[in-house]
Amino acid sequence: MPTQARERLLDSAEALFYRHGIQAVGIDRLLEDSGVGRASFYRHFESKDALVTAVLARRDAAWLEMFDDILEACDGEPLALFDAMATRYAENDFRGCAFINAMVEAADRNSPWHQIAVEHKHALIERIAESLRAAGHADAETQASRWILLLDGAVVTAMREGHAGPIQEAGRMAAQLLDRPIHST
Amino acid sequence: MPTQARERLLDSAEALFYRHGIQAVGIDRLLEDSGVGRASFYRHFESKDALVTAVLARRDAAWLEMFDDILEACDGEPLALFDAMATRYAENDFRGCAFINAMVEAADRNSPWHQIAVEHKHALIERIAESLRAAGHADAETQASRWILLLDGAVVTAMREGHAGPIQEAGRMAAQLLDRPIHST
Repeated sequence: MPTQARERLLDSAEALFYRHGIQAVGIDRLLEDSGVGRASFYRHFESKDALVTAVLARRDAAWLEMFDDILEACDGEPLALFDAMATRYAENDFRGCAFINAMVEAADRNSPWHQIAVEHKHALIERIAESLRAAGHADAETQASRWILLLDGAVVTAMREGHAGPIQEAGRMAAQLLDRPIHST
Repeated sequence: MPTQARERLLDSAEALFYRHGIQAVGIDRLLEDSGVGRASFYRHFESKDALVTAVLARRDAAWLEMFDDILEACDGEPLALFDAMATRYAENDFRGCAFINAMVEAADRNSPWHQIAVEHKHALIERIAESLRAAGHADAETQASRWILLLDGAVVTAMREGHAGPIQEAGRMAAQLLDRPIHST
């Protein structure tokens, strides 16, 4: 069934790209891993680039849904987000943020991968801001942008050091930043 | 002269890897850009991987030297580091941190690229801690690690957004975190 082949390709590609990098994984390896034939591949995707874009778009949608669940589970204490993210990272075969990694590999601000990454992070910022507003925090937009900066720094640091400690540390930093007025400059 | 060929290769490779990514730049392109012949290439480097490692090692040394100069110019106010970094990034054709990018592309904690990145960041943390201690701050080690987490988050964000604003914002966050005691958990 063509639809199954498409899903199998997306599953293989998402896992292999995350683990080995986008450029490092060629079409032959994707076909071998997914068990999908070459003709079938090109019925679903006009190129590897198109597959990459589809993988990122699907991952974006899945992450936003998961992120909504996490924020809902925080139950009025948005800071619990950081521990939830640390737990998630500790459970997975962690290789950083797929969207940061895609931006790095795209090496082009105008590429669709870069654009998906921008929109993905902005969507996360909006969701955090909403949670902060609902929890009664002022300057929710500023804090939400800071949280994504902290999370991205923490994710890069966790990739470097090989453990989720930096994500918990980012949570402590966010907590300290939250209960002080922001200096205007 | 062989030494000039080596330097030309390193210069071309450093610029091309930073701009386009490591995997995206093959040996043919490096030879064309540097004007070095293939036989000469292999007299200096046994493989492209060896060239990448040499580029990162040279960039590490150059960055540490530059970083020492920046911290010295901060003249007892280590927080000025953030503005100096923002200025630097605004002046360059910015594509994030070459060491983060190399870790992402290596996709392997045991690769020499990853190891150079780890040692590079630890050396930066040590230098910041020293500056903080010299400026009379307690908990210099913790704050220095936080600054690198903030800078790395800011650099990824600046790459995403295309301007140096996040690096200045990271400086404001560092300032707020500095003048409060750290919660112990």
